[in-house]
Amino acid sequence: MHIESVDFFYLSLPVIQDIGDGSQDALLVRVRAGSYEGWGECEAAPLPSIAALVCPMSHSACKPVAASVLGQPLDDRADIARISQLVRRNSLDLLQADHTLSGIDIALWDLLGKRLQEPVYRLLGYDKAYPKTAYASVLFGNTAQETLEKARRIRASGFCAAKFGWGPYGLGSVAADEAQVRAAREGVGPDLTLLIDAGTVWGEDVGAAAERLPALAECRAGWLEEPFVSGALHAYATLAEIANERTDFRVRLAGGEGAHNPYMARHLIVHGGISFVQIDTGRVGGITNADEVAHFARWRGVTYVNHTFTTPLALSASLQPFAGIEDAAICEYPVEASALAHDFTLESLPVDAAGEVRVPERPGLGMTPDVDALRQYLVPVEIRVKGELLYRTPEL
Amino acid sequence: MHIESVDFFYLSLPVIQDIGDGSQDALLVRVRAGSYEGWGECEAAPLPSIAALVCPMSHSACKPVAASVLGQPLDDRADIARISQLVRRNSLDLLQADHTLSGIDIALWDLLGKRLQEPVYRLLGYDKAYPKTAYASVLFGNTAQETLEKARRIRASGFCAAKFGWGPYGLGSVAADEAQVRAAREGVGPDLTLLIDAGTVWGEDVGAAAERLPALAECRAGWLEEPFVSGALHAYATLAEIANERTDFRVRLAGGEGAHNPYMARHLIVHGGISFVQIDTGRVGGITNADEVAHFARWRGVTYVNHTFTTPLALSASLQPFAGIEDAAICEYPVEASALAHDFTLESLPVDAAGEVRVPERPGLGMTPDVDALRQYLVPVEIRVKGELLYRTPEL
Repeated sequence: MHIESVDFFYLSLPVIQDIGDGSQDALLVRVRAGSYEGWGECEAAPLPSIAALVCPMSHSACKPVAASVLGQPLDDRADIARISQLVRRNSLDLLQADHTLSGIDIALWDLLGKRLQEPVYRLLGYDKAYPKTAYASVLFGNTAQETLEKARRIRASGFCAAKFGWGPYGLGSVAADEAQVRAAREGVGPDLTLLIDAGTVWGEDVGAAAERLPALAECRAGWLEEPFVSGALHAYATLAEIANERTDFRVRLAGGEGAHNPYMARHLIVHGGISFVQIDTGRVGGITNADEVAHFARWRGVTYVNHTFTTPLALSASLQPFAGIEDAAICEYPVEASALAHDFTLESLPVDAAGEVRVPERPGLGMTPDVDALRQYLVPVEIRVKGELLYRTPEL
Repeated sequence: MHIESVDFFYLSLPVIQDIGDGSQDALLVRVRAGSYEGWGECEAAPLPSIAALVCPMSHSACKPVAASVLGQPLDDRADIARISQLVRRNSLDLLQADHTLSGIDIALWDLLGKRLQEPVYRLLGYDKAYPKTAYASVLFGNTAQETLEKARRIRASGFCAAKFGWGPYGLGSVAADEAQVRAAREGVGPDLTLLIDAGTVWGEDVGAAAERLPALAECRAGWLEEPFVSGALHAYATLAEIANERTDFRVRLAGGEGAHNPYMARHLIVHGGISFVQIDTGRVGGITNADEVAHFARWRGVTYVNHTFTTPLALSASLQPFAGIEDAAICEYPVEASALAHDFTLESLPVDAAGEVRVPERPGLGMTPDVDALRQYLVPVEIRVKGELLYRTPEL
């Protein structure tokens, strides 16, 4: 069986707001081989990712991603690994390639699972999938009062864990951030797991981050996520040391969603002192690379967590790489996703009465894009180079 | 003065060959502010970089690069630094943004230099520019005999240093690679500096790289460049240790051309054990970020070198960040550049009788694109999203 087509679909809400909600648009990927169809998603800027799929070759190490995928044999997981390596080698100098590959790799796993009638996590070598405690992932309110109300609603919805991030956090005073974190803790109550996401707001300013530790410790934050940009390993390592020296409560660090290859995640683990590595399969190069990170993290005693803020399809893809790791017990669960994300698939991935979510036991990713519903979100794109049509949105 | 326009021009030879020559196409950037014009280049896949300039916003941290540049004040170098940080923050999740920013940042420095009537290296704080020993940078021949002949021609042209890379190196046997390196040494003679570039061919396979060390030591290779992909810090560090334990000749490691931000370069320096950090200003985010790496490298006792395989404009931009560092004494000098690269600028950057090249003393980068010559290479591009024309190749 050979890969016959790779189609990208740019989907979007009619109006994109200037807020941290990444579910306002999506890049859906469809791969066809033999009589099978696989679906994936790039968690990426759609237009540059489409351009990376179809662009003209610049030189031997700067080829369009499609050149390393179309026509390739696809019979087992070794084929997917080989395609991933091919893309890396042939598109070494094409920066956007990792994001473009991500959705394709996910679709290849979905397709292979459907063909072999197995959920992806089994193809990855796991015997069973453990349920994960879903943490409700939301943006901070614009005020502490708004955050308090959000937190109360999350508790009332039956979640056992919640994460607040972005919004005003880190942009104002230490006192304002303290009020936000206290409001979040008050709203979720004393027993829920509370996580805080700084969204890289301090760049590499260790001092600014360290000033927030007392409030985080007092409110028993389960982690402080992305205090710094992914590359600032020295800042991560220094803050981890400072946090570990506190005797009241140890605030652990989380990071890795910006990793667009397994190396970046490894660097945060080995050199950054993080305790949780958060991987978005839609960015890191897909399930193949995420699986590599999951194994590395386990070996190093770091907890793997998915990064997912968008659709149920992306959520299923993000859960597969650590589905069988029992002690990686929590998962990110989007609860403020857009109408687009909500309409995305025929199936849903609900949170049960125990606050847990389960990876589907259906073949592949077990999620079917609701193409009839998605057509209304389709953004038509046309790219012409030298008068030749390189890309036009295909039929969904 | 405010930035009024940012224009991207995709230039290409009529036919692109599947070889490691990155000068077969180019992405020229023109920035206008007040009555001034600045020019830069992205060393990047043109189409995805154009898409990253103009794409619709996905969310608050995934905006098109143009949104952080157009309309910004531009009066001193602090403005350029601010724009660089704005792009980083506003396009955090847009992977291609670093490559797109690179050409813009270079053009901003060129423009500012023209306005202030100073060469860029002076704006960077250097009092004078030291001449650099140019190393002729070429691809290995397909056979050792071809490499021998290339090496002899380089010697005859008056160069004092030469680098051979890519081509068959690392793809065949250890013996074949040995023959290539010996041919290069024989051709350039015993006195020239000989450098070898593996072009990431061994991925992260330390054993494969270590097997090549004896021949490299015997032929006194000044460095082994990019044995591994940029992220494989552990592989770099391990090979550096192995190389340092040799008692005959210490083969030092070089790397960094893949760095698309200063962090990646720092990681190779701090955790990878490299002795030379090679920065392409057209990829690392421009002159601003390259300057940051140059200072960091100096502080850590690592030698900064430019990475340039294309045009005289790119070469001038690449030389500025280390122009004033006297002991960073060699520079990459493209000698197999394409007709496109050859026709690129009105001025040239010649190698003198001593085998040295000098940064221009003219304002800005001191290089003027030969727009009349370049028009023949212009690749017309049109991008439409929802029927709206987002990009059409502007008038050059």
